[in-house]
Amino acid sequence: MKILIDIGGCDNPQKMIDGVVCAAKQFSDYTMVIVGDSSFINDRLGSCAPANIIVEHAPDVITNDDVPTQAIRKKPDSSMVRSINMLNGSDDVIGLVSAGSTGALLTCATLLVQRIKGVSRPVLASLMPTAVDGKLVCIADSGANVDSKPEYLAQFALMATAYVKTMFDIKDPKVGLLSVGTEDKKGDERTKAAFSLLKELPIDFVGNMEARDALSGEYDVVVCDGFSGNVLLKSTEGTAKLVVGMLKQSIMSSASAKIGALFMKKALKSLKSKMDYHAYGGAPFLGVKKLVVKTHGSSNEVSTSVSIANIIKMHRGNILEDIKSGIADALDKGEQIGESGAKE
Amino acid sequence: MKILIDIGGCDNPQKMIDGVVCAAKQFSDYTMVIVGDSSFINDRLGSCAPANIIVEHAPDVITNDDVPTQAIRKKPDSSMVRSINMLNGSDDVIGLVSAGSTGALLTCATLLVQRIKGVSRPVLASLMPTAVDGKLVCIADSGANVDSKPEYLAQFALMATAYVKTMFDIKDPKVGLLSVGTEDKKGDERTKAAFSLLKELPIDFVGNMEARDALSGEYDVVVCDGFSGNVLLKSTEGTAKLVVGMLKQSIMSSASAKIGALFMKKALKSLKSKMDYHAYGGAPFLGVKKLVVKTHGSSNEVSTSVSIANIIKMHRGNILEDIKSGIADALDKGEQIGESGAKE
Repeated sequence: MKILIDIGGCDNPQKMIDGVVCAAKQFSDYTMVIVGDSSFINDRLGSCAPANIIVEHAPDVITNDDVPTQAIRKKPDSSMVRSINMLNGSDDVIGLVSAGSTGALLTCATLLVQRIKGVSRPVLASLMPTAVDGKLVCIADSGANVDSKPEYLAQFALMATAYVKTMFDIKDPKVGLLSVGTEDKKGDERTKAAFSLLKELPIDFVGNMEARDALSGEYDVVVCDGFSGNVLLKSTEGTAKLVVGMLKQSIMSSASAKIGALFMKKALKSLKSKMDYHAYGGAPFLGVKKLVVKTHGSSNEVSTSVSIANIIKMHRGNILEDIKSGIADALDKGEQIGESGAKE
Repeated sequence: MKILIDIGGCDNPQKMIDGVVCAAKQFSDYTMVIVGDSSFINDRLGSCAPANIIVEHAPDVITNDDVPTQAIRKKPDSSMVRSINMLNGSDDVIGLVSAGSTGALLTCATLLVQRIKGVSRPVLASLMPTAVDGKLVCIADSGANVDSKPEYLAQFALMATAYVKTMFDIKDPKVGLLSVGTEDKKGDERTKAAFSLLKELPIDFVGNMEARDALSGEYDVVVCDGFSGNVLLKSTEGTAKLVVGMLKQSIMSSASAKIGALFMKKALKSLKSKMDYHAYGGAPFLGVKKLVVKTHGSSNEVSTSVSIANIIKMHRGNILEDIKSGIADALDKGEQIGESGAKE
């Protein structure tokens, strides 16, 4: 079985290739297909590359400046469109890791890979560290869908629950709805309507929660519109950077603090590694018919190999079937999670 | 001139009273009126309290469990309603600091103090620390108005600009619009519409910005709907707590790190004080006819005295006049920032 890695448009293609090599050694029964400029890729791979790596040449790249819907028509030779076509073309290809433009990848996933029957919008499900050692929380949606309808949020909850179950073997993931207070009636119109829908679903819906508790470890899934999910994700990133920066500033401003920092080197390093998003791999677009994982534009060796490992885990865990049956069951039971006339 | 301090419903009334004493000593030409249970307040004040402190007895309290619109009718003897009536009753009373329920205070401010002519919604303008030493950023709205219309966001920008000018003597505050990307076209429907409105206003509108840059120090004002503003504020709080907690955990897990932490005591303390929101005082509801500042339920001596000092600064800086003329001028020029039929 094959996994595609689209390196077009990423900041560090070398590091992504190194990550593929690492994953190829670890998962020798899978074939890794690197899609991008073949001469560059072959140069980096050299002569000692594992035999289960194939290179697929794609001379063009979709950039963040391209309009996604136009780009997928106008750039058929881009690494992303080539990858999507290969993904669609064979059952043997189980998934795609791409560091390309989020908007273009979402458009490709929705229009070309297509949605699972009943799914209104694919959700970008990002993982973040929490205060509980080793425990991650899934933010769904973390930025793919702004202006979400309440029923989309209900679908996000179902899909992210399936994801967390598969990834972390949690039996009943705790789902919180991101709001401005914990009381049932708190929130904007969308959140209030979503609250009523989530209560009816076969998930462990804990209720409304506040952004300050997103990383507390109390929740496995945080459900939200892509706008506020993106704010949550990025403000966490910004704040962590700020705090670490302030700490560095404080350390550099005094001699005794510098000495202290030497003693604390290991502790500071461990803090840094806990906050390093590369360690958790990319975020899948859940709700489409194949496994598509978006990794950060600045993906490195670790995030690439973890993303590949996550695809294998999701594949082995049959997550696509779980999502399909979860959405179908909810629709069969008459839950108000679909738009009228939702197509396969 | 008088400033009211409503201590009803706060977690640490003693600490708030201590803060009033501190402010009373600092600003001897103002009279501080503490509103709440008089016997409790007098007990704490003792016999050595400054002469410019008056106690106003209010036997009742509005809690977070009260429905705001009902509470202001049913609890006329609450500290909040008493305070608002005193604020409305005399030109001599310039402002109110309250640690009570945010929803109730917003309702009181809007319905009883009333909006400045042309203002659609009062905005809760919170200050946060940034990566630039000593520089703060104003988040408007930080939670008072969910489901804001784009024209509200335009008004928030005008009012927060006036606030930042008064508070920090910044000539042209840089205003960013919170979105999911920095490109002009990025955002949900509300943000895209607000972008067009903000471009036309007489402010230094920098464009769309991402949550990760909110605390970078590049912006003086971040404009957003109250839902995402609240997510931004609270996720910053949660992340800072998480990072500091992880650091503590790392320190406690090794002997050498513990030694290091001793050397770094001052640096760690300085980090803590920089992230301490008490130091910045409460957040004003801008857009009503008097100065109303909401402080955190867990306000202490510092946040109370700083909130009082901020009211005096805003009063001396004539911020109410600035907001009034700013909104009136924009409406006169035909900017689309008002609802048809906006009343005084």
